[in-house]
Amino acid sequence: MTRVLTGVAASPGIAIAKAYRMQRAEFVPVKEKIGDAKSEQERLRTAVEEARVELGKIRELTEQRLGAAKAEIFEAHIMLLEDPDLIDAALEKIENEGVNAEYALYEVAQSFIDILSAMDNELLRERAADVRDVSGRVIGRLRGQTHTAVSDIVEETIVIADDLTPSDTAQLKPAYVKGFVTEIGSRTSHSAIMARSLEIPAIVGAGAETSEIRSGMTVILDAVEGRVLVNPSEEELEEYRRKKEAYERRRAELRRLAGLPTVSKDGHRVELAANIGSVDDLQKVLENGAEGIGLFRTEFLYMGRSSLPTEEEQYQIYKHVLEKMENKPVVIRTLDIGGDKELPYMKLPVESNPFLGLRAVRLCLSRQDLFRTQLRALLRASRFGQLKIMFPMIAVVEEWMEAKRLLEEEKQRLLQEGVEVSGRIEVGMMIEVPAAALASEMFAKEADFFSIGTNDLIQYTMAADRMNETVSYLYQPCHPTILRLIRMVIQAANKEGKWVGMCGEMAGDARAIPILLGMGLYEFSMSAGFILPAREFIMQTSRTEWAAYIDSLLAMRSQTEIEQFVQAKKGSASE
Amino acid sequence: MTRVLTGVAASPGIAIAKAYRMQRAEFVPVKEKIGDAKSEQERLRTAVEEARVELGKIRELTEQRLGAAKAEIFEAHIMLLEDPDLIDAALEKIENEGVNAEYALYEVAQSFIDILSAMDNELLRERAADVRDVSGRVIGRLRGQTHTAVSDIVEETIVIADDLTPSDTAQLKPAYVKGFVTEIGSRTSHSAIMARSLEIPAIVGAGAETSEIRSGMTVILDAVEGRVLVNPSEEELEEYRRKKEAYERRRAELRRLAGLPTVSKDGHRVELAANIGSVDDLQKVLENGAEGIGLFRTEFLYMGRSSLPTEEEQYQIYKHVLEKMENKPVVIRTLDIGGDKELPYMKLPVESNPFLGLRAVRLCLSRQDLFRTQLRALLRASRFGQLKIMFPMIAVVEEWMEAKRLLEEEKQRLLQEGVEVSGRIEVGMMIEVPAAALASEMFAKEADFFSIGTNDLIQYTMAADRMNETVSYLYQPCHPTILRLIRMVIQAANKEGKWVGMCGEMAGDARAIPILLGMGLYEFSMSAGFILPAREFIMQTSRTEWAAYIDSLLAMRSQTEIEQFVQAKKGSASE
Repeated sequence: MTRVLTGVAASPGIAIAKAYRMQRAEFVPVKEKIGDAKSEQERLRTAVEEARVELGKIRELTEQRLGAAKAEIFEAHIMLLEDPDLIDAALEKIENEGVNAEYALYEVAQSFIDILSAMDNELLRERAADVRDVSGRVIGRLRGQTHTAVSDIVEETIVIADDLTPSDTAQLKPAYVKGFVTEIGSRTSHSAIMARSLEIPAIVGAGAETSEIRSGMTVILDAVEGRVLVNPSEEELEEYRRKKEAYERRRAELRRLAGLPTVSKDGHRVELAANIGSVDDLQKVLENGAEGIGLFRTEFLYMGRSSLPTEEEQYQIYKHVLEKMENKPVVIRTLDIGGDKELPYMKLPVESNPFLGLRAVRLCLSRQDLFRTQLRALLRASRFGQLKIMFPMIAVVEEWMEAKRLLEEEKQRLLQEGVEVSGRIEVGMMIEVPAAALASEMFAKEADFFSIGTNDLIQYTMAADRMNETVSYLYQPCHPTILRLIRMVIQAANKEGKWVGMCGEMAGDARAIPILLGMGLYEFSMSAGFILPAREFIMQTSRTEWAAYIDSLLAMRSQTEIEQFVQAKKGSASE
Repeated sequence: MTRVLTGVAASPGIAIAKAYRMQRAEFVPVKEKIGDAKSEQERLRTAVEEARVELGKIRELTEQRLGAAKAEIFEAHIMLLEDPDLIDAALEKIENEGVNAEYALYEVAQSFIDILSAMDNELLRERAADVRDVSGRVIGRLRGQTHTAVSDIVEETIVIADDLTPSDTAQLKPAYVKGFVTEIGSRTSHSAIMARSLEIPAIVGAGAETSEIRSGMTVILDAVEGRVLVNPSEEELEEYRRKKEAYERRRAELRRLAGLPTVSKDGHRVELAANIGSVDDLQKVLENGAEGIGLFRTEFLYMGRSSLPTEEEQYQIYKHVLEKMENKPVVIRTLDIGGDKELPYMKLPVESNPFLGLRAVRLCLSRQDLFRTQLRALLRASRFGQLKIMFPMIAVVEEWMEAKRLLEEEKQRLLQEGVEVSGRIEVGMMIEVPAAALASEMFAKEADFFSIGTNDLIQYTMAADRMNETVSYLYQPCHPTILRLIRMVIQAANKEGKWVGMCGEMAGDARAIPILLGMGLYEFSMSAGFILPAREFIMQTSRTEWAAYIDSLLAMRSQTEIEQFVQAKKGSASE
């Protein structure tokens, strides 16, 4: 009998191959009393040093194969080896309790992992995986082993694991590893992000049954629908071979749309842009025919390092992105840190509700040194392309005025220093705080453009943390109130002749695109991989038709009603 | 020279007296190695038992003088004595490290206090004060002392302290203690709440300079303006004696309005109601001439105890409140737990952003047993007065339908059981999630009434935690976007012939009342102490005049502009 597991399709594609079960039966060290604490501490220090060297090599390998941004996680691991809470605490435990190094480190790491795992926070749970990875590596060295690795796989396989550490994923060889399935994890875990970069199909969070898949079993991985078929029948194999071919054929077909503009059947032009987090994402952006960058999340330049990036470092990166995009529009969002994104070296205050706290432009206005550095780097880079600067989390007009004032001050300073600054930089703002959406008529007189950040706008409008599973039923992009806010913003901007984009997940969501098109959204910014399917849909649909439905849609009572309506209309249109 | 300190006026009034400096030089136990861990543990157990008896007595005293609700904090203290993290951890420390009981408990408590104090959360910081209070009490018993107390004060004084523990405050004798000033604390700390109940003027959070006030210095406590004058001049004393007289005269005058209806100069009738948290608040509600209860926060029935209140317990309380209010409207809000309000015995999940989490009706719908018990108690009590049931935190129509369905089911069951249920219970909802405000037109067809919860509505609309000081600048009740949402809600309800109330702090805010009156708000629910000043203002103003300003107010760009406008108009009206 075929067994079917479902999980999160973290990186799309279809694969059929034998399973390779990663044996990560975790080694649990036994507590031993040792006589000489000093020499036991020395053993631990040596193992830490060896692990550091090993991590340095993996970091280098990853940088070569996946780019610098993807290698940063190993910098973070190397930093963990210097974290006094981890290694120093283990050294202390050896001395105080006279126990062996393996046991001391294991215990200290475990107490960390327990605390981090208990948190209802995606990022902290991922941090737990990092601690497990690093401590496992050091314990391995103490036992004279190199770290468990997937690099010894030499035939085509689908890797099955409870979880893949970043170092495992980095060592996957795409030539042999056709996909992977993990028991835990989410779309935003490191391994999922890396799988997308490697273009390896992956399903994460497939649940406890994953552990019942043994090496050698045949597995169908459908990372389009999020299904894993174990020991499939001959019919199923045949079906999925056809699906796989069709999927690949379709991908190839879509590529032919890469060079085309996005124009609806009735001649309405929109712009499909890409969201990026680093320079390494640019290749896929270009391959997928993005008409611009709709969101450069600059916070990633600040992460995975031990100090703030300098003005010069930032300048080089912004310049590079602008040059690569060859005068296409590039919207760079100023630092959006705080909320769920932390910078350990900045020592931000612990907040009870970080999503409602000192984040993004609020933090930048309270730490002007930080903000001015970024603004200078942006202004200096502006002459290399079509830069648009965007401020996140603006709620009230005073914040906007202050951010604009600082930008103008830095511009004047640069001009006085004789530095060239583009004269055509547009300055806009995210619409993600409900107050900003409600005041969009006023802000439209001030800003050159808006970009609607739906992830946050939805969570605040519904008062529901988008990372909290118990209230996930309230995360409703197509809820009538959300659509009303979006229309309010588009109408307010259009009245002042300004353009509106969207850079939340919703912009790439096939359910939402026809509604947004009908409401007159101009720019849709999404993960590069979603661009071509979106272009295909828009090229085959009529904007006028969808525009005519909007009033009835907004009068509906629930997302369910709206989705049913859109589904029915899409169906009838494609008939 | 007079020294002037400023702080938060936690309980209004003016007092002039000599300072009495509470000596709470904290006793820091010295670490001692002890021989017999067993007998040291026994010493601790005895001291804990003595503290428990002592706390029981204080609890009783408080209940007699301040009512059951105010005594609950001592239940919480007694529960702390049973907390394994505290006492058991100290017992363990004695055994493992062979140290004295005082030191063991002090260290364990201190690590608690450090963690709790570091949190950016008002309630957790207050919890730290509770741990300090309880552990200090036990350590005092270990040293053969009764707990430091203010009960030995026998002359008129103003008590000066770094902080007052709940037990200190409970022992204050109003006859002698004319007021108090604390270095730390906030309007919502236990001592502030108790001071309001005792009607002792109090200023909290007066800062580090508080420690420089010595016993015997003359102090003027102006808990209207939030100022403390130390060693005032003869002129200042004279001035404040006059102010104190004027303040008391004005309070007496206002009492004459207690029996009157609230009608504006131009004949517009509104209702001024009170917010309550327990039966004990009813006396002040009646004294201050409330025209009803606009918000009964039932969560306080669930707090400060070790298990859920039964249906019968709740029924008795609701019945009592309805009877006391003699057929005036009583809006009872169903359980609003979660967010910043925890129930230790319910073991709610730890959330990254509790304000955006599983709270209020969301929790009730996922814990239907809990919800049904409360609904049954409410329905049974309904025949004793004019009950209105209100659901908090409704965001989407599905939640409303489900809550109504459960209410209807319980009603039918009761009727089948032969229990009498009132046929005229209104069922309404809070408007505190932006999505609910934006969908008010739809909800107005469903609900019998709305009550706008501005504390939450503002924090979600601005995406700013109202307890987080770093973003407190965004807590703007009179911001144009907030006022627009409020007007949207009032207009939607009026169109369907439904009434709208407000039960957030804003309803009692003198800056906001004229605007709300102009927008057509019907019911203003506030702390009882604010009712008479609000009634006086409304009786002297014209609703029509304020209604004419609304359009211009809502077109303004900021709260500052709006406040200046209102101030100017109020000024010219009173001339």
